Amino acid sequence: MFDLLFEHLARFVRISETEREILLAKLRYKKVSKKEFLLKQGQICSGNYFVLSGCLRLYSITETGTEQILQFAIPGWWISDYHSFQNNIPSTYTIQAVEDAEIAIITRSDADELFQQIPVLNNYFRLLMQRAYTAALRKMELLLVTSAEDRYFQFVKNYPDFVQRVPQYMIASFLGFTPEFLSMLRAKVKSAGHS
Amino acid sequence: MFDLLFEHLARFVRISETEREILLAKLRYKKVSKKEFLLKQGQICSGNYFVLSGCLRLYSITETGTEQILQFAIPGWWISDYHSFQNNIPSTYTIQAVEDAEIAIITRSDADELFQQIPVLNNYFRLLMQRAYTAALRKMELLLVTSAEDRYFQFVKNYPDFVQRVPQYMIASFLGFTPEFLSMLRAKVKSAGHS
Repeated sequence: MFDLLFEHLARFVRISETEREILLAKLRYKKVSKKEFLLKQGQICSGNYFVLSGCLRLYSITETGTEQILQFAIPGWWISDYHSFQNNIPSTYTIQAVEDAEIAIITRSDADELFQQIPVLNNYFRLLMQRAYTAALRKMELLLVTSAEDRYFQFVKNYPDFVQRVPQYMIASFLGFTPEFLSMLRAKVKSAGHS
Repeated sequence: MFDLLFEHLARFVRISETEREILLAKLRYKKVSKKEFLLKQGQICSGNYFVLSGCLRLYSITETGTEQILQFAIPGWWISDYHSFQNNIPSTYTIQAVEDAEIAIITRSDADELFQQIPVLNNYFRLLMQRAYTAALRKMELLLVTSAEDRYFQFVKNYPDFVQRVPQYMIASFLGFTPEFLSMLRAKVKSAGHS
């Protein structure tokens, strides 16, 4: 059930059989349906979620009521509002299933104990947080220096799976432009015979 | 010499006297002059830098040759290209002193050993990377949903020290607009009697 998670762990750290048993006893499994919420703006984020199948998204709701997507998570990715999760404070974000999904959960109440009982988890999440941070810096650079058109083409090139599975208006939100602008770009690609 | 660093560590984790000695023996101290480089685009990032005094910046150089600042570091902050540092590959970023600075360095060659000898450092950097990641998400949100004008006012409000110590053209770069636009905003603030 949690095979994907233990494969992912093994890519970064060595975990003993005893540690594996401790983690297995604490992990929760959950099926979520398309559009189901794992966290709503204003709630305290109660879990760190590892996607086993399906796709989740994290977004904020702007003053004008539109959704601004900041992160997607597909199988093999962790997602949470770590600020809310760590400090036990209400979140400004919402986490929702883009499609039916299966997830592994480390709950807030178990997290501290797990980091003590399985010290190597600190190493694992240090490396993952470091990757998430450097990816966020790259995304920031993309937003600051790359034209909307190039941003879309880079996204399509780097994440072809997303373009297939995620609704177009969500990709537009993630890349910081309107659905109309994205339609225009896609038409341009088609008429040029690139797809 | 490294007091600020050990105070910072103590805010997140407990470190034993033995561990403190091990870390002290590995830490390097360096004075850097204004405009001196710690990393240049194309080099492998050889250190993780903790600012004891002064200010550093991390930037990329765009296709048109302009500098895009992605991070500042003032006393109490770590800065590095973690992607380059971790994977031993050339960096796409440059790290430079904005003003004369003193820094503590964990070198790439010492890092792995330190994480093994002082396991609690994994915990410390897990928490710091988590904070850096959530801060980067907030910055991303700011770039995607906030007007340039509001972005500037939020920055002034949240980081008044930066506005005093960092040249205006660097703040403009960090916030994603031209120096001319920033001058216009500042004039507006002055004429409205806000400063």
